[in-house]
Amino acid sequence: MRLTSKDLGFVGVGRMGANMARHLSETGFRITAVFDPNADAAQALAGELGARVCTSLAEVSRLAQTILTVVTDDKAQLQIFSNRKDNLLKAAQGRTFINCATVAPATHEKVAKLCESAGAASLEACMASSITQARTGTLYLMCGGEKRVFLKVRPVLEALSDHGKLLRLIGGTGRAAQVKALVNMVMNINTAGLAEGLALGEALGLDLTMLREVFSQTGAASRVLVTDGEDMVNRDHSCFFSGAHAAKDSAIPLTLAKTQKLRLPLAEATLAQFQRMVAAGLGALDKSGIAELTFRGRGPATLKTKRKAATRPAPARSKGR
Amino acid sequence: MRLTSKDLGFVGVGRMGANMARHLSETGFRITAVFDPNADAAQALAGELGARVCTSLAEVSRLAQTILTVVTDDKAQLQIFSNRKDNLLKAAQGRTFINCATVAPATHEKVAKLCESAGAASLEACMASSITQARTGTLYLMCGGEKRVFLKVRPVLEALSDHGKLLRLIGGTGRAAQVKALVNMVMNINTAGLAEGLALGEALGLDLTMLREVFSQTGAASRVLVTDGEDMVNRDHSCFFSGAHAAKDSAIPLTLAKTQKLRLPLAEATLAQFQRMVAAGLGALDKSGIAELTFRGRGPATLKTKRKAATRPAPARSKGR
Repeated sequence: MRLTSKDLGFVGVGRMGANMARHLSETGFRITAVFDPNADAAQALAGELGARVCTSLAEVSRLAQTILTVVTDDKAQLQIFSNRKDNLLKAAQGRTFINCATVAPATHEKVAKLCESAGAASLEACMASSITQARTGTLYLMCGGEKRVFLKVRPVLEALSDHGKLLRLIGGTGRAAQVKALVNMVMNINTAGLAEGLALGEALGLDLTMLREVFSQTGAASRVLVTDGEDMVNRDHSCFFSGAHAAKDSAIPLTLAKTQKLRLPLAEATLAQFQRMVAAGLGALDKSGIAELTFRGRGPATLKTKRKAATRPAPARSKGR
Repeated sequence: MRLTSKDLGFVGVGRMGANMARHLSETGFRITAVFDPNADAAQALAGELGARVCTSLAEVSRLAQTILTVVTDDKAQLQIFSNRKDNLLKAAQGRTFINCATVAPATHEKVAKLCESAGAASLEACMASSITQARTGTLYLMCGGEKRVFLKVRPVLEALSDHGKLLRLIGGTGRAAQVKALVNMVMNINTAGLAEGLALGEALGLDLTMLREVFSQTGAASRVLVTDGEDMVNRDHSCFFSGAHAAKDSAIPLTLAKTQKLRLPLAEATLAQFQRMVAAGLGALDKSGIAELTFRGRGPATLKTKRKAATRPAPARSKGR
């Protein structure tokens, strides 16, 4: 089979990966290969898009010219490129990997070196948006890596980022991941802070619709007020970006800060909050679920009842970051 | 002298009070009385607006129908209504006091009772905006008190809040102060968090103009990013809302939280940061000066040199909250 630059593979087809694949498929690309440890997810998406379900990572690299990886964490990101038994680099000469997971800058650097040794190229493409944006190709995409690699896969990146309007080449390998870590750090601080403000308002008996309106008109305004404020009040924690992810992502900048000998008390308090959320068994909820820790009379026990009552379909609305 | 509802007095003519008086004077009100412990400030403003400089608080109440108080803290707010030697209530029958300071809800309640006993009325009018908005009459104004009092002084309030577009009657006495406390709590958390994000970006060698642009497009976006982000980078801490005020205001919601038995870790970490800022001798800087604690190689010693170099005129730009 002769591959073209339109032939794309996907490793990791969870909420984000699957919707990116759907959008690329609609805009002239061919999804030739799909891999996911969750075989059902891989099978379903492959059937939908006419792709091959791969049983090995090596097979993905055989079947696609450009491979997008959308995995969950640093460990998974390293594993798919270096696992002895099976990895993406067994026969990857000339392939380009676009790595979309939020992982530490150092992980991107390791992956870049592994790819180079295998005659392949890699680019980090950090996404500062969520599921709806993945589905509609309007991701804010921050890239890190060599410019020639960026230019090579630019059509793919542009298709995902509103015709390139939301596409940025931040710098060399690891740079985009640094920026992404900072974005999530500030976002998570603002989220944890908002959950405290609304919780205290509720405890004081204030009308929370009024309070959110006042916040939106004043120095308390923020993007997370728009995306998460109402959900915190309504306890609607349908997952767009999980508390577990927030806990993981909050740790990355603190590791960077340590190497720079900086103390970041707000970031530390935020990490502790999201870790508490995970420890309370609420890690699978959306990050808005942090409000379960701050509102009086809330928490896992009270949420269970609510969850049973609420059997809604999967969310279709936007909750962009 | 026969007083009309157009005759206004001002107690406290610092940056906020003086500019509110200027705007009201321009829009058809008469500033008849001005009082400030800083006699020079009172004299200058009175000269400008053709008002009388009062040497006692009792005199202010004699010379004005409606008196706006714009003092610095809870102690001052209570003092002007209850100091034995001299206060606003000595002969205040029929007068209305509009209290604009950011103080604890309980302070407004005490003042309201004192006024009632003296045959006067009071209204809290909490301002969620800054100096430029005071000057142009575009303050976001949150009021608490009895509706009949609110209606009585509505023309004054409307003149200050973009023809009433930014005017809200939040609820009874103390309610607006609660909302204001929450606004400042969330604003200060976002400010302290932003200072950490930019500081880490700087330490990593990232281009901070790029970083601010990315923040503005993502979940890290906030009002304080717009009002304080660039100032943090440029170390331009011309004071609109001081670090000392932020420290004071950050304490109010924590007192409320304690009575409600709520734990607010982010608000606590933020209070500690602004207290550190004050302890470092930086309390007179704008709240953006919190960045002096987080950026590497900054702090009071390095700032002194910079301050000497920068001898600019008073700021004229907007830094609305």
